[in-house]
This record gives sequence, structure tokens and C-alpha cells, in this order.
Amino acid sequence: MKKPKAIKIPPSKTELTSRLDKVRRLMEKEGFDYFVCFDPINIYYLTNFAFYVHERPFLLVISPSDNPKMVVPLLEEAHIRERAGIELELRQYSEYPAPTGKNWYDVYLQIFNENATIGIEESMSMGIMEKTPGKKVVSAILEEIRLVKSDYEVGRIVHASKIVSRGNKKLLQLCKPGAAEFALYQEATSTMTSKIIMDIPNANFKATETTAAVWPPSISHEPHLVPNIFAKMEEGGPHVSIVQARVDGYGAEIERTFFLNSVPDKARGPFEIAMKARALAYESLKPEMMMSEIDKKVKKFIAKSGYGEYVLHRTGHGFGVTSHEAPYIAEGYDRVLEKNMVISIEPGIYIPGIGGFRHSDTVLITDDGYVKLTNSPETLEELVLENK
Amino acid sequence: MKKPKAIKIPPSKTELTSRLDKVRRLMEKEGFDYFVCFDPINIYYLTNFAFYVHERPFLLVISPSDNPKMVVPLLEEAHIRERAGIELELRQYSEYPAPTGKNWYDVYLQIFNENATIGIEESMSMGIMEKTPGKKVVSAILEEIRLVKSDYEVGRIVHASKIVSRGNKKLLQLCKPGAAEFALYQEATSTMTSKIIMDIPNANFKATETTAAVWPPSISHEPHLVPNIFAKMEEGGPHVSIVQARVDGYGAEIERTFFLNSVPDKARGPFEIAMKARALAYESLKPEMMMSEIDKKVKKFIAKSGYGEYVLHRTGHGFGVTSHEAPYIAEGYDRVLEKNMVISIEPGIYIPGIGGFRHSDTVLITDDGYVKLTNSPETLEELVLENK
Repeated sequence: MKKPKAIKIPPSKTELTSRLDKVRRLMEKEGFDYFVCFDPINIYYLTNFAFYVHERPFLLVISPSDNPKMVVPLLEEAHIRERAGIELELRQYSEYPAPTGKNWYDVYLQIFNENATIGIEESMSMGIMEKTPGKKVVSAILEEIRLVKSDYEVGRIVHASKIVSRGNKKLLQLCKPGAAEFALYQEATSTMTSKIIMDIPNANFKATETTAAVWPPSISHEPHLVPNIFAKMEEGGPHVSIVQARVDGYGAEIERTFFLNSVPDKARGPFEIAMKARALAYESLKPEMMMSEIDKKVKKFIAKSGYGEYVLHRTGHGFGVTSHEAPYIAEGYDRVLEKNMVISIEPGIYIPGIGGFRHSDTVLITDDGYVKLTNSPETLEELVLENK
Repeated sequence: MKKPKAIKIPPSKTELTSRLDKVRRLMEKEGFDYFVCFDPINIYYLTNFAFYVHERPFLLVISPSDNPKMVVPLLEEAHIRERAGIELELRQYSEYPAPTGKNWYDVYLQIFNENATIGIEESMSMGIMEKTPGKKVVSAILEEIRLVKSDYEVGRIVHASKIVSRGNKKLLQLCKPGAAEFALYQEATSTMTSKIIMDIPNANFKATETTAAVWPPSISHEPHLVPNIFAKMEEGGPHVSIVQARVDGYGAEIERTFFLNSVPDKARGPFEIAMKARALAYESLKPEMMMSEIDKKVKKFIAKSGYGEYVLHRTGHGFGVTSHEAPYIAEGYDRVLEKNMVISIEPGIYIPGIGGFRHSDTVLITDDGYVKLTNSPETLEELVLENK
């Protein structure tokens, strides 16, 4: 299959309504009278309205038929009306905290019928839960629906993938021994931000972020250390680039293991094994394959090759309205791949004294296989950057 | 009192231990065998380790005497060891999700004695709560402790206040009719970021963020709309600048109402009333004053002056390891001010067709009054920016 076309426009009312209808179908199956969303990401997914959680709660209450009701601070009313792409019945409260009778839970409680069964998210906080009436049932309805993308979502992720591919290209162009982390970060993220603004002039910056960094060889064996901003790039390698973005609400990432001018001999073996492990994962990418089995197969191969103790994480994770979410290509995640899931493939090997080895791409599962949505050189030959 | 000196170094072990001791004293009072922190901000406050919440949980378990235990993904071990400023006993888990017996809750459950009473945060998620054993009691211990700052914290906020004052100065210097939002944002935030790096070369960028924007007169009456990045500054006003930062883990903000070249007649009245409301709030700033009463007094004055329907929010909020937290200068928040609280004072008036009127500063409560930590012109004369 060819790569689908990039989409740069906000979700239509039809798109958002179809997401809401999915929630309602699962609510019916579970016997819920209401479902309450507290997680800003789920609320964004359903409404196109983005916000950060501070102390003032926003709560989206979905019932089987009426327009969803949203509990919102008075202060945010205009903001919601500007961004929400779906009809909402707003229930404003004055402020947090507020005098007796005027708090968020006063308007919240009025929404529900007595003795209702209410689905709530695993991420709902204790503070909100304690004020929610009726019979509460923790349910992963939203996580479930978000696993498989609509064609619209895929188009947005195709666009986000182009943005991160561009950021990664810039990073690799500029990287040379002695280059400082912070300068690379600045150039790569502003390349991405400029392109985002060009493509989507009204992009929502509450749903947009860009990250770009290179782990030089002295720390590339620790993938979750945060590089010092004055860290310097080095001769040789392995360096590992990480470029991620959430582009007006839709996520993607690309990562590459690369070398400057030369490849240390001790790095050749692990690079080759990491690439073979990656190829093994790609071989399994099609609908109906069990995600836990893919991870198991990849780890077994790495162990058989003598690098078992140098594995620190699973093979991959999902994308959607974030650049990091379910599904997981991980032992213990016993679900099968489906068409229109979007995942990363990024098995890694991390050897103290030698370095880290990991490519990551954003990948769409298709009818009979997959399409890589991100784009950068992949082979050792291409990834020894010369004349640096 | 004079403004305390700025502090730019990480918290000492003594500072962090004293925070932990405060938790333990309140745990004893409440009869808790353990207290579990899930909120990344509380974990940062106690350990100096910053992270974002993804699906892999980090949990800090405090008991009356032993070193705190921290449940962490294997992948993050080196990162925690690098940043944590206090002794922690790490309990690593392999991955999320993981095969049976190797999940985060497997190591988590081993920490607790049977039948323990466990204090948990209001912000703890249902998913974590459901896996927490024993008798669980929601408790605001951490919120309580964070209300009043140590002298060290005050020093850090003094520094953060200098950073935002510098960003605000840059914003006002560059602002002129026709100037684009995005250019102002870029210049003001990079001014702040450069200064942060200069002052704190090893600043933690997981605990650092800067924001700077101007609400031009056409939207300044809606303080929580997000300005379009191509929005243009205009002749006259009121414009409202917002500059906030979290500087290596400590927050501050400054906001100003200003005019370019001239002041529309209809803006003079509300500006004057907003400034008088502000002065009224400042008059009340000293220990033992009831915060709800300050807000009530300010709102009553605004209402009496004829602008009651144009109030959208409370008079102020607190700062600490964030730029937005308790305590609140708000009706319904019935607590008194204490020495070493740090708050904003920012009553506002928002009139459609005329604009928004609000100054905000970061303010320290002292023995017998207050000290403003941020710094920018305040009077109408100074805030009509000429020759623009």
C-alpha cells in the first residue's frame, strides 16, 4: 500500500460525532447511563478542545443521546466555544475554589439522574471520583476506541510524520563533532515549528509540541537520561537522535542510530543485531499478529545473539492524539494488530562503554502489512555521516 | 523587608530531608503507616527528580523511618540516580505492560505490610488506587506542606521572578502596532531561556518552561483564549502581557496591562478601577489575613464601582515548584496568609468591546507585610508605550 495523503485540517463534526458514537455503543454494551471523561487527552479526542490540568476541573459527561455536557470554569467558556468541534452543553462554575453552592461539583452533581451507573476512566483522580455520584465503574472504553485510527486520524499522523522526518533530517545535517546539544535542539525544533505554522496557520499550540535531541555516544546507552544542554557531539558513535512531535493534536516520532566520520569496531556487532531485531519485528507486522508475540520474538533473537542483558524496553508503542500511548508491542500485551493501528517499531540494545542502538519509525498497519510513515536513512553505510 | 537573595543551586540534601520530615510529622498525626505520592509535582518537590506521566508509573512510598522507596521503570533508573537529591531505595520493574509477575504492581505490593493504613493524594488515579492495598485515606498532606515556602524555595522563586521580569521587559520593548504574536513570543521566551542557561547551566529542562504572550485589545477581554500566533498588536489598548516560567523547578509570573501610543477614553475608567482593586488587595497582605476575605473585599469594590459583571476570576493563586497552585486568594478559601507564602495578586476586569485590565505580580508574604518579587512599570503613565 502507498502512504496515505497527509491531512492538515481540523476534524469535521462528522469525524468527532463518529468518535462519540463509538463511545455510546460501548457504553450501551457495558450498561452505563453516563461516561465521564476527566483526562484532557480523551476530552481533546472527543471535542478538539485542548487544555492543561490545573486545579480547575473540566469534565465531559456523555449520555446515550443528548449533547455531551461539559463542566467548565467560567473563565474558559470563550476558549471552549472557539475550539470545540462538536455541540456541547456547557455547565459553567464560577471559580476554584468558590463559596458554598457555587463550586464545580455543585453544577456537576446536577447532571446525573439518581442511582445512575457511571463509567469512569482509569486516570480519573480520587478527588473527582469522590464527588461523582452513583455506581462508578472504571472502564477503558476510551483507550479501546483510540487504539484503531480513523482514516482522518491516519492522515493527521501522516502529516505529523512528515514534520518529524524534516526535524530529523535537519538534526543529521547539522550534527558534527563538537556541536552542542542546545544548538541542535534549537535548529531542529524551529525547523519543525515553522513548517507546522506554514501548514496549519491556526494550529492549536496547547496541542502542539516538538522535541529534538541527540544522545552522544557517552550517554546513548541510557535512553532516558536527559542530555545536558551543553553536551557535545563526538567523533564516531553510536549517537542516537530522537525527534518527536505532537502536531496540532496528532503525534509521531523518528529516531536514528548514526556515526560521525567513522564507526568504532566494537559498535558494528550490536548495530547489526539491533537492525536484524528490527527487521524481525517488521516481518510480523500485519493484522491478526499478537503484539506480545512480536516483542517476545524480538527479545529472544537479541538474547540468542548474546545481547539479552542489554535490553531496557519493549519493541514499540502506539500513536494517536499523543506521540506515546497504547497499543504496546510488549510481552504481556496480548492483543492482535489491526488495520489502522499506528505504532513505533524500536527494539534497542544499550551497552555501557559502547553505546545505544535503536531506530524508531512511525508505522501504519494496513490490510495486509504495513507502511512506514516516517522517512530517514536506515543502513549503516548511509548512517556514517562523512566530512563532519 | 528587602527582597531576599536569588538562589540558583539545586536543593541540598538537608533541604529535601526537611521536606520529608514534614511529611512524616503529618503522617504520624494522621496515623498513616505509609504515604504514596503519584503526582509528579509532589515527587519532584520531595526528591528533585522530574518526569512526565506516561503509562509507566513512578510511585514514591514514604514510611515513618526508612529511606523512601520508589517504584520505577527499569529504563529510568540512571535518570533518577542522576537527578534525585535524596537517598531512595529503588524498586525497578521491567516494563509496562509486562508478563505476569513482572508488572509495576508486583514490586509495588511487596513494599507494604499487611493491613496498613495508607495516605494517598487527591490526584492519585483510579488505576493506581485500585492496586494499592490496605486502608486508603485521601489526604492533602503534600498540598499542606507546600503552602508555606522554606527560605530556600523563596530564593528560587526570587530567581524565577527575575527571569519573568526580564521576559516581560523584552515583550514591552518590542511591542508595537503590527508586531506579530509569534515573533514576540519567540524573542521573549528565548531571552528567558538564554538567561536560565547562563544562570543554571545544568538546569533540568523537564522542570523548565517559559511562556510569553500579549493579548491585543481585540481579545484582551477573554483572558483564557489562546491568541492566534499571527495576531497583530494594535494602536491603543488595553493590551495584556502574560509572562510565566518554571525555572529549573520553581515558578513565577508577571502580567501587565499596557497601551501603544495612546489610551482610548473608554479604557481609562476600568484601568483606574482595576488598579484601585489591586491596591486594596495589597493593603491586606500580611500574616493572619483571611484569603477569602481579601477576594471578597476586592470583588465588592469592583462591583460597587459598576464593573461587577466583568469579573471572571479570583484575586490570586500560589507559586512554588509550579507557577500555579494553592493557596488561592479566593472566596471559599477560608485560610489565613502566613509568612513565606508566595502568591499572585491579579484582580481583573474584562469588558467586551473595551478589553481586559489586569496586572499580576509574584509576591512574598513577610513577617509584617509583603515584598513584590517581580518588577515592571505599574502606572498608566508608564504603561502608555510611546513612539511605537
